[in-house]
Amino acid sequence: MINVLKEIPDAKTEEISTALLSARSVRIERIVSHGQASPPGFWYDQEEAEWVLVLTGSAILEIEGEAETRPLGPGDHVNIPPRRRHRVAWTDPDQPTVWLAVFHAG
Amino acid sequence: MINVLKEIPDAKTEEISTALLSARSVRIERIVSHGQASPPGFWYDQEEAEWVLVLTGSAILEIEGEAETRPLGPGDHVNIPPRRRHRVAWTDPDQPTVWLAVFHAG
Repeated sequence: MINVLKEIPDAKTEEISTALLSARSVRIERIVSHGQASPPGFWYDQEEAEWVLVLTGSAILEIEGEAETRPLGPGDHVNIPPRRRHRVAWTDPDQPTVWLAVFHAG
Repeated sequence: MINVLKEIPDAKTEEISTALLSARSVRIERIVSHGQASPPGFWYDQEEAEWVLVLTGSAILEIEGEAETRPLGPGDHVNIPPRRRHRVAWTDPDQPTVWLAVFHAG
């Protein structure tokens, strides 16, 4: 069982997702970003709802239909309903951003 | 929306749980402990499964049927199946222990 905060892989080349729990009604992943962002015009459009919590680092999340982007730092969390299109506008290039993502039925 | 890591209430008198998400298939809570432990002989016995992650502080979890207790620090996580009896043997009396708890269907 990996330690979510101490065993952080180098994600400078690409984002790294690690499954923490896969159960009937929920999947939990740790995602490590390091400067990545969604490509311009790319939107995630998921069947599942996703609750995300930033554990370390910082990021900016863009949710379709919201006037403002959401800057997120350690301890900030957002629940994204199924089919709500969203993208990662920015993650800190100077340090790992560690996300906890809980995928659920909404 | 509270910041899970920055807005930490004083839990010296009693543990404080804060709902972060209540959805169809999952509930997410932040629990702040500060020296509390389950009473001797008391066991949690829950219909739901519970995945817990320690964010800050330290604790010792006891799971029925396991030979050793589980010391937990920041980044450590455990999934407790439904009806698996468990208790909190110890939490650090000198600092808050912040848990993230994801209750799910198992």
